[in-house]
Amino acid sequence: MGVSGCGKSTVGKLLAQELEIPFIDGDDYHPEANIKKMASGQALNDADRKGWLETLNDLAKQQLSKEGCVIACSALKQKYRDTLSQSIAHQVEWIYLSGTIAQIFERLKSRSDHFMPSTLLQSQFDTLEVPNKALHIDIGLSPEIIIKTIKNKLMIPSDFGLFGLGVMGKSLCRNLANNGFKISMFNRHVDGVEEQVAVNFKAQFSELSTAAAFDDISAFVNSLQQPRKIMLMVNAGKTIDFVIEDLLPHLSKNDILIDGGNSNYLKTKERFDYLKDKGIHFIGTGVSGGEEGALKGPSIMPSGAAEAYEDVKPFLETIAAKDQNGLPCCTYVGTEGSGHFIKMVHNGIEYVEMQLLAEVCSVLKHAGKNLDEIADILETWKETANSYLLEITVDILRKKEGDHYLVNQILDKAGNKGTGNWTTIASTQLGVPSTLIATALFARYTSFYKDERVANNEHFRITTDTTIDITINEMLEGYQFARIMNHYQGFKLISEASKSFNWDLNLSEIARIWTNGCIIRSTLMEDLVTVFKNTTNIIMDENFAAAIKAYKPSVKKVVSQCILNDVSVPCLGESIQFFNGITTANSSANMIQAQRDYFGAHTYKRIDDYGVKSHHTNWK
Amino acid sequence: MGVSGCGKSTVGKLLAQELEIPFIDGDDYHPEANIKKMASGQALNDADRKGWLETLNDLAKQQLSKEGCVIACSALKQKYRDTLSQSIAHQVEWIYLSGTIAQIFERLKSRSDHFMPSTLLQSQFDTLEVPNKALHIDIGLSPEIIIKTIKNKLMIPSDFGLFGLGVMGKSLCRNLANNGFKISMFNRHVDGVEEQVAVNFKAQFSELSTAAAFDDISAFVNSLQQPRKIMLMVNAGKTIDFVIEDLLPHLSKNDILIDGGNSNYLKTKERFDYLKDKGIHFIGTGVSGGEEGALKGPSIMPSGAAEAYEDVKPFLETIAAKDQNGLPCCTYVGTEGSGHFIKMVHNGIEYVEMQLLAEVCSVLKHAGKNLDEIADILETWKETANSYLLEITVDILRKKEGDHYLVNQILDKAGNKGTGNWTTIASTQLGVPSTLIATALFARYTSFYKDERVANNEHFRITTDTTIDITINEMLEGYQFARIMNHYQGFKLISEASKSFNWDLNLSEIARIWTNGCIIRSTLMEDLVTVFKNTTNIIMDENFAAAIKAYKPSVKKVVSQCILNDVSVPCLGESIQFFNGITTANSSANMIQAQRDYFGAHTYKRIDDYGVKSHHTNWK
Repeated sequence: MGVSGCGKSTVGKLLAQELEIPFIDGDDYHPEANIKKMASGQALNDADRKGWLETLNDLAKQQLSKEGCVIACSALKQKYRDTLSQSIAHQVEWIYLSGTIAQIFERLKSRSDHFMPSTLLQSQFDTLEVPNKALHIDIGLSPEIIIKTIKNKLMIPSDFGLFGLGVMGKSLCRNLANNGFKISMFNRHVDGVEEQVAVNFKAQFSELSTAAAFDDISAFVNSLQQPRKIMLMVNAGKTIDFVIEDLLPHLSKNDILIDGGNSNYLKTKERFDYLKDKGIHFIGTGVSGGEEGALKGPSIMPSGAAEAYEDVKPFLETIAAKDQNGLPCCTYVGTEGSGHFIKMVHNGIEYVEMQLLAEVCSVLKHAGKNLDEIADILETWKETANSYLLEITVDILRKKEGDHYLVNQILDKAGNKGTGNWTTIASTQLGVPSTLIATALFARYTSFYKDERVANNEHFRITTDTTIDITINEMLEGYQFARIMNHYQGFKLISEASKSFNWDLNLSEIARIWTNGCIIRSTLMEDLVTVFKNTTNIIMDENFAAAIKAYKPSVKKVVSQCILNDVSVPCLGESIQFFNGITTANSSANMIQAQRDYFGAHTYKRIDDYGVKSHHTNWK
Repeated sequence: MGVSGCGKSTVGKLLAQELEIPFIDGDDYHPEANIKKMASGQALNDADRKGWLETLNDLAKQQLSKEGCVIACSALKQKYRDTLSQSIAHQVEWIYLSGTIAQIFERLKSRSDHFMPSTLLQSQFDTLEVPNKALHIDIGLSPEIIIKTIKNKLMIPSDFGLFGLGVMGKSLCRNLANNGFKISMFNRHVDGVEEQVAVNFKAQFSELSTAAAFDDISAFVNSLQQPRKIMLMVNAGKTIDFVIEDLLPHLSKNDILIDGGNSNYLKTKERFDYLKDKGIHFIGTGVSGGEEGALKGPSIMPSGAAEAYEDVKPFLETIAAKDQNGLPCCTYVGTEGSGHFIKMVHNGIEYVEMQLLAEVCSVLKHAGKNLDEIADILETWKETANSYLLEITVDILRKKEGDHYLVNQILDKAGNKGTGNWTTIASTQLGVPSTLIATALFARYTSFYKDERVANNEHFRITTDTTIDITINEMLEGYQFARIMNHYQGFKLISEASKSFNWDLNLSEIARIWTNGCIIRSTLMEDLVTVFKNTTNIIMDENFAAAIKAYKPSVKKVVSQCILNDVSVPCLGESIQFFNGITTANSSANMIQAQRDYFGAHTYKRIDDYGVKSHHTNWK
C-alpha cells in the first residue's frame, strides 16, 4: 500500500517473484467508471471505491485458500484496509511504502504510462491515514534492498513454539504473545474433531497477529529459531511419549523440549535420560495457576539441565507471575524430574488446603452458622490468614442461584486428577509421613462412596443436631494450626526427596515462586520464604513455634468437639495427631518392634547400646 | 543286610553294577581272628565285631564323599547298624533281604565255599533284630526282580520341591516331611558363604531322612515327579525373576512354580503371563505365620490357574493350619496375583492391629497403669477380644530382664518390609480410602524420626503428666471399635480390587483361612467368616452394627481425651474420623468441587439433575 507512484507495482511484482506466489495489481480491477473519472482529473469518492475493494478482498480470500499472494493497492484509509482484509485480518501482512510528497512528485513526472495525473497527488496525501500495524518501508531504498528487508521482517523465525492448544496451552500462547514474543503454535489435525485449531485460535485474539499457526509438525518445527524451544502442553502420560517420538525426526542437536504438563516426576527423569542420549534437552516444568494464571502469569517450576534452562529462562521468567519484589515466580528448580516433583507436592498441599477449608465450612455450619455468615467470617480471616483458596471460598459461599446457595446444589463427590495420589505414593516410597495429603486424598475417595454414605447414615441414624461449642477465633486458630502442619509436611517431603535424589533444592526459592501465580499462594507462603533462609524445619522457626503453641489449645478444642459431636474433620484431626506424633520423645513403636521380633524374628535395637546392635529374644 | 546266606553279596554286586558305583563285601574286611573263630564253629561276640563295623563305617564315609557305594553286611542288631551308619545316618539307605529259616537253610546246604557252617544259622536268627527303617525284600524273588524293586523304591522321584532354604523355606520343608511327603530341597551354592546348605539341613532333622538335598539345579529339578511342583522361598523382588530364568531351561511343559514370598501382586500377574506363554504354571501364594506357623501350619493364600492349583492342593492343604472345623487354612483364592494381593492386605490389617495395641498400651500408661497392670488388663480382654497379636502383646509386656521391662529397653523406631507401603499404594491406585493402613504405616515412618521427635519434644516442652480420664472398659470398647473399622477397610479394599480385576474373590473363605495359622487370627476374624456369607459390608451386619453403636461413645471419649491430653493415637483417632466420614450423607466435598471448578474449570455435578450432566460456573 501507499500513495500513487510510491512503487507498489514494482515492489509487489518483485516480492511475488521472490516468494513464488502470484502478484495482483489492484488498479487492474477498477471498474471502467473509476478509470474514466480518474483520467478526467477527478478524485474517486468512497462510494466509487467500495465495489472495487470488495472485489480485491474476494480475490485475496481465494488466494489464501491456496498459497497466498501479493496485492498492490493504495489502501489509503483504515476503512479501505478493513474492507480489503475483511474476515482475513489475522492472515494479512501490510507493507506500507513510505515516501515524501517531493520524492513521489519526482517519480510521477518521469512516468507517462500512468492514468493518474500528478495533480491528484496532493489529494492522495490528504487522504492518507498512515497505518500503524504495517511494516513501513522507505521508498528511497533500492528495490532489491526493499525486497530483502520485507522478506527478513515477514519471514522471521519464531522465538518459541507451543505444542498443544488446550485450555492451558492457549493461555500460555497469549501470555507469550502479549509479552512480545514471536511464537509458533501447533495443534494436531484430527478430521472432523480438531481442524484448523491453531489458525482459528490465532484469528480469535489480536495479540496473536504475529504468531504463526500450524497443524503440520514439520512446518511448525522449521518455523523456529535454533536451538528450538518447544513447550508441550498435552495430556500427561503416554501422550508425551508419542509426541516426543513425532517431534524427534524434525529436531536438531541442542533443541529443547519443555513438558509443561503434570507429568510424573519419575517419568520425567526417564525422558530426560532418553533425550539426553539423542542430544536433545528436556525440561520438565510444573505450571500452576489454572487457565487464568497461565494467561496472566503462572507460577513456573522448571527442572532439567541448567544450561538448557538459560535458553528458556527469558521466556518463562517473563510470562511468570511476579512476587512481592517484582521477581518472577519462576526459578530453576534442579535437575531431572525435580520440577514435576515439587509441582506434585504443590498439588498435595493444595488438596489439604482445600480439604481444610471444606472442613472449616462444615464445622461452622455445625456451630450454627449459615453460608452467608460463614462467608462473612472467612472474609475477616483475610486479614490474618489470607490465601487465594480462602478468597475463592468466600466467592463460592456467596454465589447464589435465585434464593439458593449454588454450592448446596453441587454433588458432594470430589474428583481428582492423580497428583494427590502420586504425592501419597511418593511419600510412602520415600518413607516420609505425609499424613495430611493422604488424609485429604482419602477424604475425596470417601466422598465418592455417596450411595454407601447415605445408606450408612440412614442405618446408623446419625443426626448431628447438637451444636458444636467453639468460638470463631478457636476455629481460625485450629485452621491455622492445621495449615502450618500441612506446609511443614509438604516442605519436609520436598526436603527428604532432595536428599534422596541429590537434587540440592532451595526451599526458600520454592516458597518464593509459590507466593504468586499459583493456587496455594498465601500470606503463610510469603512468611516461609524468609523462614527457609534459616532452617529447613518450619516448626523450629521462632515465630512459627510461637504460633503453634498459641493455636494448639484451639485445635484440640475444635477437634475434640467435632469427635464428640460426630462431625468428620479428618485433616483437622490428623493435624493434631501428627503434631503429637512428632513431638513424642518416646513413642509406642517399641511395642511394634517387640511384636515384629516375637512373630517374625525381625530383631530390634536397644536404647542402652545406642541402637547399634540387632537383638532377638525368645519372648515366650 | 540280612542273615548269612540271604544273598547279600549276590544282590549287592548286581545292584552296584546297576547303579555304577563300587560294591564292598563286609565279610572281606573281617580281621583274621574273626574268620578263624567263625570257621571253628564259634559265634562272634560284640567285642569281636566292634573294630570290623568301625572299619566298614570309615569305608562308607570315604565313599560318600565320592559317588557312594553298596555295602553288604549282616548287621543283625540295631546297634551294629548304628555303628555302621555313625555320623552319616541320614545318607544311608538300608535294604533288608528277608527270608524264612527254611529258605536260608536250603540255600546254605547247596553252598560249599562259605566259611560259616550252617549250624550257626539258628544263632543268627536268634540275634536278628528286624529293622523298621529299611526296605524289606523277599529273597524268594529272582535277583533281577530284586534289583528292579530296590531301584524303584530307592530312586523314587520326589513329590514336591522346595527352592531356597531360608527360615521360612526350612520350616516348610520340615512341615512337608512331617506330613509324609517325599521332598527335594535346594539351596544355591555360594563359595564360603552358602555351602552344602541343603545337605547340612537334612542332617539336622530326622524327619528329613527321606528328603533329597541338592545344590545343583539340574539334579534338583530331575529328582521331581512330573508335572513338577517347585515352591520358591527366596527374597521377593528381582531375585524371583533370576530364579525363574535359572529354572526355566530345566523345566517341562505343565510344571508348576509356586512363589511363596511376599511378592508384589502386579509382578505376580506379569510372571504368571510370562510363564503361561512358556507352558509353565505360576502360582503366587501368600504364606503367613512366621517361622513357627510355616513349621506347624501356616495360613496359605494361593492364586493362579485353577487347574494348576488342583495339582498342588494336596500338599498345601495338608501342611496348612486347620480352622475350627478342621478344614485347611488354605483355599484357592483366584487367578493372577490375587493371592499375593490378599496377603498384602493381610499385612496391612496386621500393621493396624499392631499399631492399635501399641496405642492402647500408650493410653493405659497415660491413664496411670504400669506394664504389669496393662498386661493384666489385656489378659482379661482375651475373653471378648482375643487375637494372636493380643496374646503376644501380653507376653511382651510381662517379659523382664532382671527388674526391667524388656520392652522399655527397645528403641522406638519401627521397621517395615514393604507390604504396608504396597497396601497404601494399592489403595490410592484403586481409589479406596484405606485410611487406617496408611495411618499405621505413617506412624512407623514418624517413629523413625527419633532425633527430631526428641528435639521437638524438648522445644515444645510437652509434658503429659496429666492423667487421661477413661475407664478400662471404655478403652476396650474404643479398641474394638477401631478393630472393626480396620477389618471393614481391609475387606473393602479386597472387595474393590476383586471388582476392578474381575477376580471374583470369596470374602468368607478369605476370612476363614485367616482364622488360624496367620498373624491376624482372632475371634473377630472367626465372626467374619459367617458375616461374609451374607454381606460384603461388615458394618451393615446386624451384630457388627450393634457393636459399633455400643462402642462408639467409648471411642469418642478415648480419642477426645487423648487429644485434650496431647497423647498421639493416630489409628484410634482415624477410626472415628473414618466412621464419621462414611456415615455423612452430605459431606463438605461439594465445596471442593466448587473450588476445583473455580480455579481449574474442572466442572461439577448437581444433586438436582441426579449427577448426570457436568456444569461449569463463572464464580466471580
